[in-house]
This record gives sequence, C-alpha cells and structure tokens, in this order.
Amino acid sequence: MMENILKLVQAGALSIEEAKKALATYEDLGFAKVDHHRQKRQGFPEIIYGEGKSVEQIITILEAIKAKQNDVLITRISDEKASKVLEVHPEFTYHPVAEILYWKSEGKQEKSESFIAVLCAGTSDLRVAEEAAITAEVLGSNVKRFYDVGVAGIHRLLDHAEEIQKASVSVVVAGMEGALPSVVGGLVSHPVIAVPTSVGYGANFHGLSALLTMLNSCASGISVVNIDNGFGGAYSAVLIDQLARKNK
Amino acid sequence: MMENILKLVQAGALSIEEAKKALATYEDLGFAKVDHHRQKRQGFPEIIYGEGKSVEQIITILEAIKAKQNDVLITRISDEKASKVLEVHPEFTYHPVAEILYWKSEGKQEKSESFIAVLCAGTSDLRVAEEAAITAEVLGSNVKRFYDVGVAGIHRLLDHAEEIQKASVSVVVAGMEGALPSVVGGLVSHPVIAVPTSVGYGANFHGLSALLTMLNSCASGISVVNIDNGFGGAYSAVLIDQLARKNK
Amino acid sequence: MMENILKLVQAGALSIEEAKKALATYEDLGFAKVDHHRQKRQGFPEIIYGEGKSVEQIITILEAIKAKQNDVLITRISDEKASKVLEVHPEFTYHPVAEILYWKSEGKQEKSESFIAVLCAGTSDLRVAEEAAITAEVLGSNVKRFYDVGVAGIHRLLDHAEEIQKASVSVVVAGMEGALPSVVGGLVSHPVIAVPTSVGYGANFHGLSALLTMLNSCASGISVVNIDNGFGGAYSAVLIDQLARKNK
Amino acid sequence: MMENILKLVQAGALSIEEAKKALATYEDLGFAKVDHHRQKRQGFPEIIYGEGKSVEQIITILEAIKAKQNDVLITRISDEKASKVLEVHPEFTYHPVAEILYWKSEGKQEKSESFIAVLCAGTSDLRVAEEAAITAEVLGSNVKRFYDVGVAGIHRLLDHAEEIQKASVSVVVAGMEGALPSVVGGLVSHPVIAVPTSVGYGANFHGLSALLTMLNSCASGISVVNIDNGFGGAYSAVLIDQLARKNK
Amino acid sequence: MMENILKLVQAGALSIEEAKKALATYEDLGFAKVDHHRQKRQGFPEIIYGEGKSVEQIITILEAIKAKQNDVLITRISDEKASKVLEVHPEFTYHPVAEILYWKSEGKQEKSESFIAVLCAGTSDLRVAEEAAITAEVLGSNVKRFYDVGVAGIHRLLDHAEEIQKASVSVVVAGMEGALPSVVGGLVSHPVIAVPTSVGYGANFHGLSALLTMLNSCASGISVVNIDNGFGGAYSAVLIDQLARKNK
Amino acid sequence: MMENILKLVQAGALSIEEAKKALATYEDLGFAKVDHHRQKRQGFPEIIYGEGKSVEQIITILEAIKAKQNDVLITRISDEKASKVLEVHPEFTYHPVAEILYWKSEGKQEKSESFIAVLCAGTSDLRVAEEAAITAEVLGSNVKRFYDVGVAGIHRLLDHAEEIQKASVSVVVAGMEGALPSVVGGLVSHPVIAVPTSVGYGANFHGLSALLTMLNSCASGISVVNIDNGFGGAYSAVLIDQLARKNK
Amino acid sequence: MMENILKLVQAGALSIEEAKKALATYEDLGFAKVDHHRQKRQGFPEIIYGEGKSVEQIITILEAIKAKQNDVLITRISDEKASKVLEVHPEFTYHPVAEILYWKSEGKQEKSESFIAVLCAGTSDLRVAEEAAITAEVLGSNVKRFYDVGVAGIHRLLDHAEEIQKASVSVVVAGMEGALPSVVGGLVSHPVIAVPTSVGYGANFHGLSALLTMLNSCASGISVVNIDNGFGGAYSAVLIDQLARKNK
Amino acid sequence: MMENILKLVQAGALSIEEAKKALATYEDLGFAKVDHHRQKRQGFPEIIYGEGKSVEQIITILEAIKAKQNDVLITRISDEKASKVLEVHPEFTYHPVAEILYWKSEGKQEKSESFIAVLCAGTSDLRVAEEAAITAEVLGSNVKRFYDVGVAGIHRLLDHAEEIQKASVSVVVAGMEGALPSVVGGLVSHPVIAVPTSVGYGANFHGLSALLTMLNSCASGISVVNIDNGFGGAYSAVLIDQLARKNK
Repeated sequence: MMENILKLVQAGALSIEEAKKALATYEDLGFAKVDHHRQKRQGFPEIIYGEGKSVEQIITILEAIKAKQNDVLITRISDEKASKVLEVHPEFTYHPVAEILYWKSEGKQEKSESFIAVLCAGTSDLRVAEEAAITAEVLGSNVKRFYDVGVAGIHRLLDHAEEIQKASVSVVVAGMEGALPSVVGGLVSHPVIAVPTSVGYGANFHGLSALLTMLNSCASGISVVNIDNGFGGAYSAVLIDQLARKNK
Repeated sequence: MMENILKLVQAGALSIEEAKKALATYEDLGFAKVDHHRQKRQGFPEIIYGEGKSVEQIITILEAIKAKQNDVLITRISDEKASKVLEVHPEFTYHPVAEILYWKSEGKQEKSESFIAVLCAGTSDLRVAEEAAITAEVLGSNVKRFYDVGVAGIHRLLDHAEEIQKASVSVVVAGMEGALPSVVGGLVSHPVIAVPTSVGYGANFHGLSALLTMLNSCASGISVVNIDNGFGGAYSAVLIDQLARKNK
Repeated sequence: MMENILKLVQAGALSIEEAKKALATYEDLGFAKVDHHRQKRQGFPEIIYGEGKSVEQIITILEAIKAKQNDVLITRISDEKASKVLEVHPEFTYHPVAEILYWKSEGKQEKSESFIAVLCAGTSDLRVAEEAAITAEVLGSNVKRFYDVGVAGIHRLLDHAEEIQKASVSVVVAGMEGALPSVVGGLVSHPVIAVPTSVGYGANFHGLSALLTMLNSCASGISVVNIDNGFGGAYSAVLIDQLARKNK
Repeated sequence: MMENILKLVQAGALSIEEAKKALATYEDLGFAKVDHHRQKRQGFPEIIYGEGKSVEQIITILEAIKAKQNDVLITRISDEKASKVLEVHPEFTYHPVAEILYWKSEGKQEKSESFIAVLCAGTSDLRVAEEAAITAEVLGSNVKRFYDVGVAGIHRLLDHAEEIQKASVSVVVAGMEGALPSVVGGLVSHPVIAVPTSVGYGANFHGLSALLTMLNSCASGISVVNIDNGFGGAYSAVLIDQLARKNK
Repeated sequence: MMENILKLVQAGALSIEEAKKALATYEDLGFAKVDHHRQKRQGFPEIIYGEGKSVEQIITILEAIKAKQNDVLITRISDEKASKVLEVHPEFTYHPVAEILYWKSEGKQEKSESFIAVLCAGTSDLRVAEEAAITAEVLGSNVKRFYDVGVAGIHRLLDHAEEIQKASVSVVVAGMEGALPSVVGGLVSHPVIAVPTSVGYGANFHGLSALLTMLNSCASGISVVNIDNGFGGAYSAVLIDQLARKNK
Repeated sequence: MMENILKLVQAGALSIEEAKKALATYEDLGFAKVDHHRQKRQGFPEIIYGEGKSVEQIITILEAIKAKQNDVLITRISDEKASKVLEVHPEFTYHPVAEILYWKSEGKQEKSESFIAVLCAGTSDLRVAEEAAITAEVLGSNVKRFYDVGVAGIHRLLDHAEEIQKASVSVVVAGMEGALPSVVGGLVSHPVIAVPTSVGYGANFHGLSALLTMLNSCASGISVVNIDNGFGGAYSAVLIDQLARKNK
Repeated sequence: MMENILKLVQAGALSIEEAKKALATYEDLGFAKVDHHRQKRQGFPEIIYGEGKSVEQIITILEAIKAKQNDVLITRISDEKASKVLEVHPEFTYHPVAEILYWKSEGKQEKSESFIAVLCAGTSDLRVAEEAAITAEVLGSNVKRFYDVGVAGIHRLLDHAEEIQKASVSVVVAGMEGALPSVVGGLVSHPVIAVPTSVGYGANFHGLSALLTMLNSCASGISVVNIDNGFGGAYSAVLIDQLARKNK
Repeated sequence: MMENILKLVQAGALSIEEAKKALATYEDLGFAKVDHHRQKRQGFPEIIYGEGKSVEQIITILEAIKAKQNDVLITRISDEKASKVLEVHPEFTYHPVAEILYWKSEGKQEKSESFIAVLCAGTSDLRVAEEAAITAEVLGSNVKRFYDVGVAGIHRLLDHAEEIQKASVSVVVAGMEGALPSVVGGLVSHPVIAVPTSVGYGANFHGLSALLTMLNSCASGISVVNIDNGFGGAYSAVLIDQLARKNK
C-alpha cells in the first residue's frame, strides 16, 4: 500500500498533503511503540503476524524491534516472502513447513527436562503442527513431536502413549473429524491444548467439524484454540510448560 | 385429533358433513393400504413411527396390520403409551430403554453365526443404542452389545476389539464429539454404520457436532444416518447382515 | 427408567426375561467398573454428571464409589435432587449456586500459595463461575473469585488486575459478547482458560456469540472450553495449577 | 459489459435491435435520474459503490452527477481503477487506504468544535476505519482517529479515554473478536456505532464473530452496521454529528 | 436461589459456613457498588434486567438504588412479578405491554420539541416497540408512536411519512422479513435505529431473518441492535435525541 | 394482556391514565381499520393469524370484520380456542385438522372445472396440507387431495399422475427430505408451489432440510414458501387458479 | 474433459479400451435422448445450463436438439463462450447482460395483451433480472421491465404501481436485504415470484439474507426460487402467464 | 515444499541442520511405515489422497508401496499431475473423469455375479459417480452404471428399476436437491449408500442441501457419506458387496 501511495504522488494524483496523511497513519500504528508487556516480562520475542503484510512492512517492523535488542518471531510468512527478508537479514532462520521466520539472541535458555508434546493426526495437519512446534521452541520450551498418529490407526498412538504422558502439556493438532484430542485426553494426566485444522472437505466446513468435536470432547482437561491456530496453541502450552520447568 | 373431531360433532360445532370429510382423510391415509413392498419381500415387520401418534391411532394401525398376519414394530413409543397399548394387546413386548413395542409371529428365524455389533460411547447414548439393537433383533439379526466404550478411555474399546471384528457389520452410536466410529473403523474390516446422537450441550448443537465428526471420519468404510436414528442405523445393518447370513 | 421397567413387570407387560435383559444393560455400564485412571493417579474425586440422572441412579453410583474409598463430585445437580440425596447421605456438601454436591475425605490437601483466579463478567454468569470455582476447590486448588468485572465497566476489572496477575492460571467466565478473556489475556502473563456461557438472547444463539469471541481473541495465551462448561474450565485450570503448586 | 455488447455488434453476432435493447437497459438505470433526496436535502455528495463497476461505468456516472453541480463520493474503488479515473478527472482526490475517490465543491463547510471519534482495534482493520474516517470528513464532519487501541492492550485505549469522551459520536471498528465497542461503550456517554470487520481466520467466519459480539454487547448505546461497512458506520455517525454541530 | 440456600440450612443440609459463603457471593455482586457512570452523568435511571431475577432479588436491588436517590428502570419483568413488587412499592409504575416497571423522581425533565419516532411493522412486534417507547420516555425523551405500518401495506406508512421525518431519530421495530427500516431509511434524513424481533416462524430462525435484512439494508443511515432489544434501541436513540434537544 | 391490564387497574397497581394508554395502543392497531385492499378487490375473506392471540382478541377482531359484511378466515387456531369462539359464533365452521376457523357468506362462488391439486408426502404433513386445502377452498378454488404419496413409495404417486396433471396448479407439501415437489415438477406441466414442513428430527433442523431441497430442485416451474406455511402456499395457488378459472 | 481423454490416448497413457469407456459414458448421457416432456407439450425450447460446460459440449448438445427441430435456450453462458458458439451458429441470438444464448423457430407465438412484470431492486441485480426477462420472452411471454425500484427510494416503485398491477404475474428480483417483493406483494393482486440475488457483502452471506427475507414476507401471494435463479423465476412465471393468456 | 527447503539451502538461507530437521519430518511420516491393516487383510490396494500432494510426493509414496508388492489407488489426481506420473510409471492406468490413477497386479480377482449399482442424478455429478465406480472396480467389485436418472424425470429411473434391484448394494450420487437416494431406497431391498455432491448454486451451500436431504430420507436402508466423497461411498459398498460375493 505504501508503494501505491508513493506512486500516486509521483503520478500527481495525490497531493503531498494527502500522501503525508495516509503515510502518517502507518507511523502512528508502528508495532514498536506498543508495549507488549507480557512478552517483555517473560523474555518472549515480539511476534508479527505475517499474513497480509508486504515484505517491506515486515522488514520495517522487524528492524524496529531488533533495534531495541528484542527477539523477533514472524508467523504465517510464505517461502517467497521469507527468502526476500533473508536476503536483507541472513541472521534470521526460516522454517518452511511451519512458515515461521525468527531471530533469537543467544544464551537465554536454561536447560530443563520438561517438554511439550506436539501431536498431529495426519500429514495434512503438518503445517499447523510445525507452526506449534517451532513457536514453542522459539519461545523457549523443549518439544517432542508425535506425528501421523490419527485415531483411524489407534495403535500408532498407543505405541507412544508412555512417552507422551511424560510431557508437561500436549498440543494436539487434528483436522477432518478432529477426534485425536479426546483419545489423548483419556491417556494422559496433563493439560491438553487442542488445535483444530481446516484440513478436509465437504461437511468439514473449513475446520468447523474438528472445532466442534474438540469443544464437545468427553475427556476432561482439554481446552481449544481457533482453527489452524498452531501459534496460539503453542503460546498457551509454553505458559503452562514454564510452570513445570521451574521445578524440574 | 379423531377425538376432537367427534367432540366437536357432539357439541354441534361441526356438521356431520364436515366431520365425515375430516375423518375420511385419515381412512385414505391408513398404513394398511400402503404397499411397503420391501418389508413384504424380506419378511420384515411393518414399522410404525410412534412419536406424535395417539394411543388410539397406534392401536387402529397395528390391528389393521395384524389382521393381515404381518409382524409389527413400533418405534419411539413412551412407557406411558406402551402400557396403554399392552392393556389391549398383551401379546406385544415392550422394551422400555429402546422405547420399542413389537409383536412377532413365531418360527420364522433361521439360525446363523453372523451377528451385528452395536457399540455406544457413553451411558447417555443408551436409548439410541438400544433402539438400534432391539430393531436389529426384531428384524431377525443376532446382536452383540458393546456399551460405554467411548474414546476417552480407549482401553475399554480395545479389550473388545477382537470380538467386534468378528461381526458382519457394526452400528456405532455416539454423542458429544462422536469420535468412536473413526476408531472402530480403523480396527475392523467390515462396514460401519455411524449413528450420531443429540447427547451433549453447548457447542454440540443437538447432535450436529457428532454428525459432522462422523461424516468427516478419516477412517474408510463408514457411512452415517440421521441424528438419534438408531432404527435407521439398524435397518441398514440388517440389510447388510442378511448378505452375510446366507453363507454362515 | 429402572422404575418403569419394574412397573411393567408388576403389570405383567414385561416378562422376567426381558426385564432382566433391560436391567442387566445398566449393570454392565456401572461407573464403578470403569477405570478413570487420571482421577486415580492425581487423587481426584470421581465425577458424576448429574443432569438427566435420577436421584436413585445418583445414589447407586455414589455408594459404589464411596465403597471404594474414593471421593465423589457430582455436577449439574439441582437443589431438589440434592436435597433428596442429602437425606440419605448427610455427609455430603451441596453448593446451591454451583449446583455441585460432593464428598471429600479429610487430610489430603497440602498447603500452597498458588491459586486459580476465577473471573466472571456479570451476575448472570454466576452459576457457571461457581461451578468452576467449587470444582477447582474440591479438586484441591485454592481459588480467588473476581466477579462482575465485565468489560462495559473496565475499571472494575483494572482495580483487581494486580491481584489477578498473581494467580497461576485464570478461568474467565463470560456470556453475552464474551469479551472479558481478551482483556484479561492482555493484563496477565499466565494461561487463561475461557468459558463462554449461554447467557444472553437474540443473536447470542445460546452462547455461540461468546464462544466465537473467545476463539478469535487477539490476546495470546487463551484457550477455550465448551459453552457453560465451568467444570471443564476448572479441570484444565487445576491440571495447570498443580504444575505451579509444586514449587511454591 | 457495454464493451462486450459493442464487440458483438461489430462481430455481427448481435443485431442492432438487440444491442439497442441491451444498452437501453442501462440508460434507464442511470443514477442521475434517481432522486437521492436525503443527500440533496443535507448537502451530501452523491455516492457510488465502486465495487463491480468498470472504470467506464464509473466515469459515465460521475460525469452525469458533476454535470448537475453535485459533489461525488466513490467507495470501494481500487488503486488501479482510481488511477485511471484520475487521468481523466485530476480534480478528484483519492485515498488509497480508504479506497475512496471523491470530488467536493468548495466553501460549503461551516466550522464546528464537534467531532466524530473513529477507533480501530488493530492495524488490519485500517482499510475499514479509513473508509469510515474519510467518508465522515467528505460528508462534512470533523474526525479524530484513535487507531490500534484493541482490548488486548487495554491501556492504549484508556490513555485516550478522556479525548474520545469529548466526541459527539464514536465509530468503533474491530475484527477478530470485536470486543472494542463494548469497552468503549462503557467509557463514553455518547452514541457508539460499531463496525465489525472480516479480519481474522478460522472460527471468525468472515466477520460473523465480530458481528455477533457487537450485537450482544453488554454496554448500552451501541448499534451495529454490516461487516466491513465503514461507509455505513460513518453515514450514521454524520447524521448524529449534525445534530450536535448545530449548537457547538 | 436465596430461598433455596435458606431452606437447605433449615433442613440441616447446608452448614452455616457454606450458607454464608453462598450468600456472601451475592453481596459482593450487589449492583449498588457498581459505578454506572454513564447513567449518573446523564441523569438516567439505573437499569435492572428483570428476566431471570426473583421478586426478592429485584426488590433488594431497587431499594438499594432508591436509597441513593436514584431513579430505577426495570425491563423484562412479567405482570406477575411486577404485581408483587407493586404490593411493596406502590409508587412504581408498570407498563404491561412493554413489561417495564419504573420509578422516577419528579421535576427533572426540560421541555423540548424534539421527539423520537417509534415505528413497528405489525401488532406482534408490539411488546418490543413498547419496550423501546417506554424506555425512551422514562429516559427523558418525547416519543411518537407509528404502529402497524409494515411494508406489505405501504400506504399506511406513507400517510405518516411527513410526521416521522420531523423526529430527531427513528427506532424501527420489525419481525418476519424486517423490511421496514429500509423503507423508512429512504424516507427520512435522520438516523434510524433498527430493532429486529423474533416474531415469525419457519425460516425466520427466531429473528435471524429480520436481523440480516436490517444489516444488509440498501438505505444509508441505519444501524442495528440485537434481536428483541427494544431497550437497547431506545437507549441509543435517546443518546442521539439528547444532542438534538439542546438546540430545539 | 388486555385482561392483565384490567386486573392491574382493579388492584390499584395501574392508574386509569396508564391503563387508557396501554389499551389505546390496541385500538389504534385494530385490524378493522387496515385496508387489506387485495382481499377486498378479489372478494377474499379477511385473514387472521390465530397463533398468539387470545380468544377475546380473536372474537373482537372477527366481529369488527363481520360488521362490515366481510368473510373471515382464521388460521393456526387450536381446537380449544376454536370451541370457545364457536360457543359465541356457532355460524362459523371449524376444521380441526387444518386448525382453521372461518365464516363465509353464501352464493358468491361460480362453478368451474379448474382445480388445485394438494399433495402431501406423509401423514405427519397432514396439518399443513389441510391448512393449504381448506384455505384454497375458503378462498374459492376447487381442491383435489393426493395424500401420503411420498417418494419412498413412488408408485403411490405415479398412480395419480394423470389426475394431478389436470390441475391448474399443484401445492406440494413435504417434510423430512422434501423430495416430493421435484418428482411432481417432472410429471406435470403447470406451476408447482412447494411447502416444506418442519416434520422430522435431527439433521432436519426444523424444516430447513426440506426447504433447501425444494429451493434446489432440478425440476423447473417450482417456487417455494416458508416452512409450514400451508396458508401461504394456498394463497399463491388460488391467485394462479383464478387465472385458469376464467376460461374453463 | 473429452479433450483430455484424447490427449492421454495420444500420449499412450490411456488404452483404447479405457478411452472408449470414458467417452461412452458421455454418449449414454447425451441430453438428446432425454424426454423433456414438459417442454415438448408446451412448445418450450429445450434448455441447457451452460455453466461448467465447454464450448464443444454446448455445440454438440445444441446441434442434437436442432436436428430434431426443437428450439434451444442456453443459460449462464459467458460472452466469451457465446462468441465461439456464434462463430459456428450465427443464427443464434446472444443477450450479454442476461448471459443467455438462444435459437427460436419463427411463427409460433400468438399475440396477447397479457404480460409478465420483471422488477429489480438495484442495478447490481441486473444480470439476474435480465436472465428472467429474456427467458420469459424466449418462452413466449410478453415482458415489461421495472428496474432500479428498490425500497430505499419507495417513490420510484410507487410511480409504476398502476402499470405493474396490470401484469398477470410479477417476477421480483432483489439482493442485499431483499425487501422489494414484500412491498410489491402489498401493491398487486396477482402472484409474485421472488428471486433473491447474491448481491451484497458481509452479513449478506451470498444471498442468504435476501432469501430469508423473501420466505418470511408478511405479504401474501409470494413464492420464492433459489438464489440468483432468474431462469427458474421466469419459468414459473411463464407457466402462470400461459393460464392468463388463454382469455386475454 | 521439499523443493523449497532445498532451494533455501542452496540460497544459504537455511542451515544444513535446519534442512535436515525439516526433511526428517517427512521421512518420519512416510505412508510406507503405516500398517493399513484393513487393506492388507482384504487384498485392497493402498490408497493415496492426491489432492494437495505434489507429483514428486506422489511418486515417492507409490514407489514405496509398489516396492512392497502392494497395489496402489490414487484419488483426486488431476489430468496434469497424472500425465507426469504416467511418464515415469506407464504401467499405471488413469481415469480422467474419475480423476483416479491406479496400478493393480494381475490374477487376483475371482468371478462373481454380484455387482454394485452406481447411480447418479445428473451429468454434473459424473466426476463423483465415476470416482465411486472406478474405486469399486479397482477394489474388486463388479459395477453397473445408471447415470442421469434424476427424480425430475422419474421414468428414466423406473425403466432401470428391475436391473438395479438385482445389485447387492447401490451407491447413489446426487447434487442439487439430492432426492434420488430416497426414491431408490423405496424401489430396492438392498442397502443404499448415498453420496451428496456439491453440484448446485445459491441455497445449495456447497452440497449441504443434498447432504441434509439424504440424512433425512424417509426411505429406510440409506446411509450417507461426506459431500463429494465418491471414494468413501464405494469403499463402504465394496465391503458390503464382499459379503454378497461369497455365496453367488
């Protein structure tokens, strides 16, 4: 959009006055001014939701954040955009499956036995599961992945039950019928964060089916985040895992 | 309604002409005239959906059917109504949990090893599960029940997996998140008929959650009937079981 | 239902054979047989969902549980039913607002500074909030209540912000527009469990509005349970609080 | 479409008769004939909804309007289309963020202290907020913008509360959970027009979540317009502000 | 509920300790403590939503409010409950159609020519229309009623168009297809507050049809409140009318 | 309600002034004043929607209409209410199945061969079908009924196909899956008015299923009215039949 | 698709056997074999739904129809496709606004005074309105168009009321809030066919809003067809108009 | 995605460590490891859902499967992708209408008279019907196709009724109103698997209309699979047909 404003100025279609006004709007909105106090307090990086932002906007914001010595985590950023950011900022790391780009200063992390279990039902849920797993790692938790353990082949899950039970919290990602969190909830005694995905078709209604399944789970100890919100699931899980880390 | 018509005649509020017309409507509609050919051909009883019918209507219809030597199966009939029918027709049998009342002539059934597995997730799904089980039995199939085997305690189901696998077809009844058919579908190699129930609250939306879960199942070989339709699930299962009976 | 079966036997409308079968179904389903392993492991009471169960059924189940020396928590049980249970079991305690009846053996609880904050938006959300608060207390957590702190009068909430921040986890109950968890999520740095209620009318659609609001929250660290599911919200919170208790 | 008609004539595929008929339809529909009496009476410009109209159609309509000495406001017109219109009519002004193009004759506006507060929750709601702000300005009101004041960081809003309270009316734009109008409604004593946006994903359902939140607000004095309808929100606000202007 | 608590104490089923706790909850929630600042500032009465509250609760709350010299407005209170309140507080006035009970101290109101037009489409929308009209009057505005002016007999509305146009703001109440606000919006040049009602059946979906109609209105200057929310419509209208009153 | 107003006056709870105001509202709304011009022009009776109106209200309205020498048709009036009206007005005729009460002056009807075919799928759709049939007869059309001809037993329908084809228009009533109009639409060459009913359960969603089926019909010449709206279907059919009557 | 099959054969990826099978499927499905009896009996052209069909498929089908001396009407066919068909069959006529292509043999039509009124609310509803108008004309009815007569400017409609009333039937097309049919229904005494369009945004939900409005209309004599189904609305209207034509 | 990972490595934007991790994720998820026991036991091919998978991924997976001597069935694979796979694996067969690619070892199939009837309502349902038919054939059943037998021309269906009745099971595919399974269910005495398709527009809501119709069918013996799930319908049908094959 910034580009368009400038082009219109160049073309004489927009007065300097108007252009200043339009551009000023953005400056007032800079993420840098905003006090994301929670992140601050817990040593979390500042988070940018990449979808719908241009490469230019992303670079502007991340530079403002880095200027303050803060870590940065960018979610929902495509390969294409990430490559362009990496050209300018090669110190960043990109996870193509998770569609996450981040930069983290060193030496902050304390060791701990505590870990978050990230499970997903099928290979199509991978993007969301990896968004959760990488987010959790960047936010400072240990993660163990248990993928393709959907309920239609229950033994694949049961084989890992003992290991999953050792986690402080599970993030369970599932599309289609979304039944996995119910089964996991019955196998473990720690909190379960369920993440419905929009994977499926027809009466799936873009993830509504999985969402309702999870909200109606007959197992206790399950709470749910928005459809495809791997980041949100991980964020809640990390807050829980931090309570567990303190005494392990 | 019949009663009301007559009362209005008595009160002079309805002419003989009008009353005849109103009553005639019913006669034209008598179930007895209707050629329920499928039932005929397969030796099935004639079926009456009891909900919304008065005791008088039910008795009129069942007598018409019995007069033709046909068996009768009445679904969705409450304790209270059934008791009144039983006063007049003590030869009928009532299943209070299934809310089914039926009469069956003897000697028709051939022996077979083949059976239908009826599973349900929780005790609240019992009415629908029993509607399925009793329907299947009255229609001539053997039934084995596996109740309270919901996915939140997966071992309860796995303990019975070998036995369930021996069935010709499974009818799987579940409310709340409705995840049971997916797990069963992954354990057996016969067809699964899934019956969602309206059991639950909040975002369950009267069974919609379980219905969507079942339609979106990632396991193959599952087909679904209407919410709370234990009768329909059993009917499909019996048609399938009959194919299996022929060579067992 | 049990009663109806027996009455039909008495009336001769149900054979001994049929009655046995119908009754046997229940015995097979007895909660006592079921291994609620999670509860066992964590010293939690066994939980009975009271809605739709008769006083007789509830007493039968709770006596079976108590016989095994286990604690009992009954949710969604009305004043009327509770009074009848209390006549037989005066050792139980009833919370009329929360509609919870429980019995707990003594001496189990360890002291801790850790507590769960239970917030609710308006007085109409009280039943659900108390269901959460009492559940959490019976399951062994400390609870501090912050009631009637809805967003339309934001200062009521801000007055308590410092105290709420000290909790290990917040359970935030809200009906109508359900905006409270978003604001709380921005004020605290611990996990937030959001509980939508069905309080409201019109385009509220029985809690759907509050549910969607909470799932779409722009604050991080919020996960959601089913509409009116105060019990479920508390259960998740207690699992989290237990992690915090260990080192306080 | 006009173009296609002519091409078909050229290709001999459409008779002159048919072409005349097809074209005539448009002439009968010309906006110029229509008596938009409200606009007339209040000195408002005539309004064109740009979406789905070709550059040619827009130019035809706006020239017809200008020919009658009326002001013109075109909403939902993209950068690309606007640029083409500006080539022909450089006297127009384009707002790229608001996607509004307008022309206004001079000297009409009286000075007033009265103003409309336009608030938005996040940067993604900017397009709609600017559509509201620019519309209000072109229609003759003063506007003060309060952007990125979403409820997840409540202090950002509270810092501006005193200033917002001075407005005659607030237009509050929010997507995702849409909680901002409820909080604003509790802080001010003037009318609040809430504008839900389609910003969000998953269970947001293209703005339905924010819409329901706003309709169910527990704060009084809030009324709602359609999803993304920044123009409509501003129009209502200006009608209200005009009542306030008269005595300020 | 208060009653139930006391009965359980009497029956020995609730300890004094528990009863105190349960009762204390209410005291903490007393409306009297809450600073409804908007009402205060504008001389509005304090408002109680009567639905779901017992006669005892209503009397407790209103006495607390009157003790502070404030006016009181109770909405959604049935004939039956109102009669009981009136036995104790005969100084209150009850509107049976609007289901509103209120008490207002004298002498506050200044005269003005300004008025709110309250329109409704059909006689079935009367309860909601009167809730709006009486609310507006008690809050201090003049009201003119235009009832049964639905769009299926458009001349009934047009006969009053000139008079309606003189209002400062219109509150337009309609159920079924909810088309009335669109037509009114095209006839007047002041703001229109649309109130959908749940009147209708079938594909009306409890007011959803009318709500969607109003949100999608092609007329400008219309904003919408929740289904059946006559009070909310009036509250917004009064805030607008106050701006108009100042200079009439 | 009228009763309640008077009772409150008697109890001194309502001043004469207030009572007059409340009562006056009704007088202003009297159906008698309204110019139902369409009915007038076509010699149709005036129509009262009985649901939600008290016996007193119905009698008041019908007497006002009869005083003007007009015919009266009251729909959705229960047996109980109708009996009470008939005590006062024995000249009326009541159809208990259709729940219609009417009075018609004699000698108006001209003879014609033209008739409306009213079809229904199952016996549970009878109330709506009869509402359509009786409405059509009272409005002056000949009606032939074809009941219980649902698509699951297609031969029942085909047996009557030739006769149905002779009608000027068909009104086709169906609940559950609502498939009948599609089949009829393919068999006849006259217009078909489809009336979905709320008969069914589960995923029927109170008639939504049948409604959608009918709107999506692949047969041409079908248009649809609201769920359960037998009256509306008949009204449209009679308007069509009148065109046919003129030349038969 | 036909093309793809052949390409695969060419590439050796598909055996002759398989290709024959895939192609044979189409031959079995040829529209030419199908007995569209209704069209036959009434001298209607055969109708092809153009959307989703390739130019090749359309030409194949229309040539088969013309070979049998039948008229042809193709709906939902874009400019681009139509141009290609016209290259081969210049005897066809294309209506670019209606997106209809047809060929009609001469001399069939009898003269009549009877006509169908086609109304639409706004210019964006034009495509659907023209689809209705052209369909009706090709099917043999006279049509008068009344466009851009939406309810937000009620006088535009009232100016034409007398003329519209002379029609035998009205087809009323409207998007957004869809209120026009209700107002028309109250002005005329002939049947009204309402056609909702998907024009609108936000809470319009792709035409659902207009559809519900029309189904819930408080005016009598209105029936509804599917969203955007101008063809269907016209088809029903022509069947009605034919009854009127006979005696005019 | 695999490609992107490698490109980023090449570009130096991704470390070897990170790349290994991202790639390893896939290896852990290889379909080859998974024990699809049902397929194994019944000699079924392994099934790959092609949608959303790249040509490279598909080839990798199918080679892994073929390496183990298993048959392969790939559904939802476009012409374009299939052509590329066929270049590498010319031993595969592609069905362009069904969008299925498969490879099957020879000599497995036993002869049988038993067959599955695959019906579809209209030519637009062809893709889904062929997906069902080809799936059933590849899984080892005989198939007879009955296409374009929709209910709007009921005689087309009735002409084939006798032949369809001979099948062991019917798979009935229908979009738009989805009425075909109900009619078929009334004509045959074997199980019917109903497959709704997303064919239609407007109030079809992407297949929801057909889905609801089928779930609400008044014919018995019908069960339903997800929208457009031709594969799932066939899979269930084959499991049923296998029971029938054993004794034919």
